[in-house]
Amino acid sequence: IAKDMAKLLEMKAQLGGDEGKHKFVLKTPKGTRDYSPKQMAIRERVFSTITSCFRRHGAEVIDTPVFELKETLTGKYGEDSKLIYDLKDQGGELLSLRYDLTVPFARYLAMNKITNIKRYHIAKVYRRDNPAMTRGRYREFYQCDFDIAGQFDPMIPDAECLKIVHEILSDLQLGDFLIKVNDRRILDGMFAVCGVPDSKFRTICSSVDKLDKMPWEEVRSEMVGEKGLSPEAADRIGEYVQLQGGLELVERLLQDPRLSQNKLAKEGLGDMKLLFEYLALFGITGKISFDLSLARGLDYYTGVIFEAVLLQQENHPVEEPVRVGSVAGGRRRWGLWGLPDSPEFVLFTPLGLILFTTKLMGLTYRVLDGSASEEKIRTTETQVLVASAQKKLLEERLKLIAELWDAGIKAEVLYKKKPKLLNQLQYCEDTGIPLVAIVGEQELKDGVVKLRVVATREEVNVPRESLVEEIRKRTSQ
Amino acid sequence: IAKDMAKLLEMKAQLGGDEGKHKFVLKTPKGTRDYSPKQMAIRERVFSTITSCFRRHGAEVIDTPVFELKETLTGKYGEDSKLIYDLKDQGGELLSLRYDLTVPFARYLAMNKITNIKRYHIAKVYRRDNPAMTRGRYREFYQCDFDIAGQFDPMIPDAECLKIVHEILSDLQLGDFLIKVNDRRILDGMFAVCGVPDSKFRTICSSVDKLDKMPWEEVRSEMVGEKGLSPEAADRIGEYVQLQGGLELVERLLQDPRLSQNKLAKEGLGDMKLLFEYLALFGITGKISFDLSLARGLDYYTGVIFEAVLLQQENHPVEEPVRVGSVAGGRRRWGLWGLPDSPEFVLFTPLGLILFTTKLMGLTYRVLDGSASEEKIRTTETQVLVASAQKKLLEERLKLIAELWDAGIKAEVLYKKKPKLLNQLQYCEDTGIPLVAIVGEQELKDGVVKLRVVATREEVNVPRESLVEEIRKRTSQ
Repeated sequence: IAKDMAKLLEMKAQLGGDEGKHKFVLKTPKGTRDYSPKQMAIRERVFSTITSCFRRHGAEVIDTPVFELKETLTGKYGEDSKLIYDLKDQGGELLSLRYDLTVPFARYLAMNKITNIKRYHIAKVYRRDNPAMTRGRYREFYQCDFDIAGQFDPMIPDAECLKIVHEILSDLQLGDFLIKVNDRRILDGMFAVCGVPDSKFRTICSSVDKLDKMPWEEVRSEMVGEKGLSPEAADRIGEYVQLQGGLELVERLLQDPRLSQNKLAKEGLGDMKLLFEYLALFGITGKISFDLSLARGLDYYTGVIFEAVLLQQENHPVEEPVRVGSVAGGRRRWGLWGLPDSPEFVLFTPLGLILFTTKLMGLTYRVLDGSASEEKIRTTETQVLVASAQKKLLEERLKLIAELWDAGIKAEVLYKKKPKLLNQLQYCEDTGIPLVAIVGEQELKDGVVKLRVVATREEVNVPRESLVEEIRKRTSQ
Repeated sequence: IAKDMAKLLEMKAQLGGDEGKHKFVLKTPKGTRDYSPKQMAIRERVFSTITSCFRRHGAEVIDTPVFELKETLTGKYGEDSKLIYDLKDQGGELLSLRYDLTVPFARYLAMNKITNIKRYHIAKVYRRDNPAMTRGRYREFYQCDFDIAGQFDPMIPDAECLKIVHEILSDLQLGDFLIKVNDRRILDGMFAVCGVPDSKFRTICSSVDKLDKMPWEEVRSEMVGEKGLSPEAADRIGEYVQLQGGLELVERLLQDPRLSQNKLAKEGLGDMKLLFEYLALFGITGKISFDLSLARGLDYYTGVIFEAVLLQQENHPVEEPVRVGSVAGGRRRWGLWGLPDSPEFVLFTPLGLILFTTKLMGLTYRVLDGSASEEKIRTTETQVLVASAQKKLLEERLKLIAELWDAGIKAEVLYKKKPKLLNQLQYCEDTGIPLVAIVGEQELKDGVVKLRVVATREEVNVPRESLVEEIRKRTSQ
């Protein structure tokens, strides 16, 4: 028996050994990605377009830690709480990675007793979702939030939010777009006058929300069949939710015999009228559509809701037509931000705007990659390579490049004592550097530098003292 | 007994209940911080100075996820591994927050089989340290890494790294600084010729490293008394490590009867000579000091080591003189980046440079805050507030501001239907907006806008069509 036992133990050890010896895999965690220099170039282009716009509108910027106390996130996300990444308890505080930027923002305002702020925050958030990475969904992804918190006269900040979305989508040049707007009060009033019982508002609302993917007939039968709404009520809803338009539609509905009797609807329509008047002053009503079927996630929101969608891109035909859907959304949030076991409640009513940056980055990448234009995605901004024609002259190259750096010119030099001219030119072709400043024995004698335009192979001798000026002139667009 | 038991249980339940009902505390996790708009303004100023310099030198940029597979970090940090933040095992991969940017960089290169790259990466890293936040140390903090990976002719990239540190510290305007350089090979050669046994290299090295905080006599007695080095060897070391200088010191040591006999030292000194020649071409030898006592953390490094320190700031007297110490460090790392249980080893020899950004941000903040100059830290970039003199005219304000936004002017408007002119002017004072564009009945009739300079109270009427031009002219520095 002892012998058998020993044999078994040995076998077990062997097995255990093999089991333990798994192959190390060189990868990033599930649902995450690296950004290569090329992807970073896209990301910086998109972010810089977005932040320039926020800056143009006088926004400040804040940042918060990547993790929060677990209890700060507790009770904020309902069902989705299971997607939160918790940190291991290592004998300190219980921590979780942030799930969005809204709760940290609310925590920041409450902690610092701030009631008035217009801020943006672009940062990564974390969700243990089952990512569909091919469709651009990740477990670690960027959110880009812009919020105006404070009490103001109605619809002025709301109009500015829509102007901001309009500016950003125009600046990103992703093709034509439409911004749909609606108002929670109009929806609630509409449901009431159509005869939807209070208890069914939420579920009927989520049916209405499917109208951008389903025809009305299907939505109607879901309401009546699955959700038990009376056919009459459904038909009345159908009359409204298929309406889209501008100021004239708002005015027509203000005269609507049913809606005009409902206090909430009247208030919402009154504000919507005001909003369209402001949007007209901003000159952007052409791309705004008052759409009674827009009803996204209404739980925490009062007031205005909006959502921007890209229309089919004719200028940038995409090989595999994917459903782009919405690229930005916004709503006025209203609510008390509850702190458990605390007498303090915080009134948290920012007007929020979220840009779906991963989508925007992906689209920009495709547009740039597929564009017929000459524009290549460069990963550096180098204006000029300092090269030598002869195989020595490293010292002269270093002297010249220091002059250029000190003058603020973006310049590179190959880290070789004796590089071939051909290799230096090839490097420019590969990396998109537009100019080469060539030093040679003759040029040094003459006090000039030979400046070569990589694209055209044109060469001119430039006096050394005007080289910086010449490079600037030739590389400024 | 049953009765007593029930009583006890009740008491216990009561106690437990009270224990569980802790007060919710509104705070960020230990060792972390929010960045307020003012702190963000400083951060963006520092980061933009740094990245402009990296861009000027042709660097690319990458990004990696905030967490890595736990096994990617395993065995990379020795003792310090206990400071790594692990994520909770929720039935998926075992993950840890990144501890630095070097291991993710190595993983990125290995995964993508990249051998040549010049990249920077500015991102947050995580260490469960006992933070001394008053001294600017946090558990979540930024690292700023710049690395040149690849095989090149000696000392050319090394010289560029020093040039970069020189440029960044000059551009940040934090006062005078000094960059100390040394070379691992010179240190090893020196220890050998002084008679330090191989087994004591490391411990003697860490004694030498204390010379910037302790006088030589104390370091010597540590070497002899605690570490058992012979007094003769210690005295020989003492002759070397108190030397500092430039090219002339390098040349003198190349003639040194002992060092010139040591292959490693000779190689190191030869390269140091080359480095100083290149630095002279860059015109920066004035702030570079070859310092034989510089010996920081030599474990993983071959070649050049350097470290930048700020000297006493005479222009910016600091109230409480704190030890600033080094603000940047760099070294050539050489090593196989081992992947456990894998036949693949990756040759990872980047020349790295780390800027201690938290320190740099803190210093910039102090300099700006304490500076006698007019420069205030603004949290927005708004050039002009669009205001109205009369209590109506919201529509005219909105029309004008849309014109300005569309022309790329950074402009704000108060979200009020009828703001008082005084409140509008006060808002500019508070936020540092330099100009006010005032519309009134008369101005509208005359086709002009009244432009007011907040600082001087000067007012001029500007024709509406040249307003954009005028604002640009007055707000460009």
